[in-house]
Amino acid sequence: MIELEIIELLKEHAGARRDDVRVGIGDDAAVVRPVPGEDLVLCTDTLVAGVHFPLATDAEAIGFKALAVNLSDLAAMGAKPCWALLALTMPAADDAWLSGFARGFHALAEEFDVQLVGGDLCRGPLTISVQLFGSVPADAAITRRGARPGDRVCVSGPLGDAALALQLAENGARVPPPLRERLDRPRPQVALGQALRGRATAAIDISDGLLIDVGRLAAASGVGATLWLESLPASESFRENGGTAAQQLAGGDDYELLFTLPADAVVDDGCVIIGGIDVPGPVRVVDADGGAVSVADGGYEHFG
Amino acid sequence: MIELEIIELLKEHAGARRDDVRVGIGDDAAVVRPVPGEDLVLCTDTLVAGVHFPLATDAEAIGFKALAVNLSDLAAMGAKPCWALLALTMPAADDAWLSGFARGFHALAEEFDVQLVGGDLCRGPLTISVQLFGSVPADAAITRRGARPGDRVCVSGPLGDAALALQLAENGARVPPPLRERLDRPRPQVALGQALRGRATAAIDISDGLLIDVGRLAAASGVGATLWLESLPASESFRENGGTAAQQLAGGDDYELLFTLPADAVVDDGCVIIGGIDVPGPVRVVDADGGAVSVADGGYEHFG
Repeated sequence: MIELEIIELLKEHAGARRDDVRVGIGDDAAVVRPVPGEDLVLCTDTLVAGVHFPLATDAEAIGFKALAVNLSDLAAMGAKPCWALLALTMPAADDAWLSGFARGFHALAEEFDVQLVGGDLCRGPLTISVQLFGSVPADAAITRRGARPGDRVCVSGPLGDAALALQLAENGARVPPPLRERLDRPRPQVALGQALRGRATAAIDISDGLLIDVGRLAAASGVGATLWLESLPASESFRENGGTAAQQLAGGDDYELLFTLPADAVVDDGCVIIGGIDVPGPVRVVDADGGAVSVADGGYEHFG
Repeated sequence: MIELEIIELLKEHAGARRDDVRVGIGDDAAVVRPVPGEDLVLCTDTLVAGVHFPLATDAEAIGFKALAVNLSDLAAMGAKPCWALLALTMPAADDAWLSGFARGFHALAEEFDVQLVGGDLCRGPLTISVQLFGSVPADAAITRRGARPGDRVCVSGPLGDAALALQLAENGARVPPPLRERLDRPRPQVALGQALRGRATAAIDISDGLLIDVGRLAAASGVGATLWLESLPASESFRENGGTAAQQLAGGDDYELLFTLPADAVVDDGCVIIGGIDVPGPVRVVDADGGAVSVADGGYEHFG
């Protein structure tokens, strides 16, 4: 069973069908309408020790990242973050670990005007599950579904840094601070997400790797896409430390926004056009000469 | 560090202080106000395999209970359930397990008009974290904070069944179906919770054991309480199978509502008065002669 099949199974068994659900299972976040005029955006992201971060990761980075990945989901919907819940499962209650975790969480929560309003504490293998709730004006949420042939494919920043940092760490090599920062403290694109409301035709955050996430956006929109290998933005540290195209295409953990704009739209500062939306078909990667690039590793799949 | 200290630490580091938060960390659920006129109630509860249920528990019961414990939290706030998120961490994707889990979840979701709108899938030790969202009219949520001296302490149904079922199962004894049902498929008191709005002065759901949960309600309200041992309701199966007072007082997993009513209020059908609220002081248990009963085990604490 792959992730998509599990999601389909859960969709079939999702319980009641409610009229106030605007976007259900299958996007970066869900959108519901408690009362007319304002929509509420809900998302959840879980970090499991040894799966999503090395066991040795410091607590502050874990607290930071647990909130950051959820902020990134809300950013991809164009939502303004408001409240968070925290389901924290720990093998033991370690004072120093918890203080560090809380500090990391707090720093980001304060910056983005998020208040932790509740949660649940359990004893068990270290697992951090954060739920984040935000608001958008009615029907203003950006989904994955609106990309149209002729749209430009844009990305909000450099790709591959986190994957390179993780590889260096796993090889026991020194991880340059700018790369380490990108792995441990990704900056969610919250302001950009809100600025894209009413302009981007579709958006997704790049968590599992560029190719797999473009594939998700394309599948949800019922379109194909072409990505230009030479246009993928890379940081200076990434170039200097031997980052590869595979890390940019399939590395994951970037937490940049991937979005589509009509061909005549102005591209936001700091964003880069990396391809175009095609008529229904596959997601292709081409080099400077227009030749197809074959990509062995399609990104991070949780199951399958 | 005990659970309360962890909660205090997280409260201190809860990020921004927002005006739209009506009830933050420390109740059965949080209450926020996205727009005027309607409040939103948010809760999360996590089940960890081997901690919250035996590893051999069937998938359908796990799916049912994961939603039931959250419905019980919303019931304790008087909220109407609406939407759910599911953060599911599994060691492997097992088709039969997932189908069973989804069936159990679905049955309850449909009954209570809840739609699963999103979630997150991870590979790791089996952990099921459900978030549930409900609505209440503005300022109508029932908190733990309003109990006053002279109020009656009421409970919505029999106590101790789940604890007895668990003990029988652990001893390798046969678990009578009515007790097994109470452990695996607790019936959340959703309708009663809503009926108590504007009437109950405080409410909490009994998840960690009567004594510990009465203690939480009393602490939040700044009052003491006396519980009458002889008045604690017990099921027929409980009596027939040797259930003990300790299981009723400290067993946990009951998912009945514990609430307080003014002395002149009508007690709902099926509910039982089990004590009274006192001036600030301890929570005491007394027998039929009014003698204090000493209770060794104070319920289930996750840490400490």
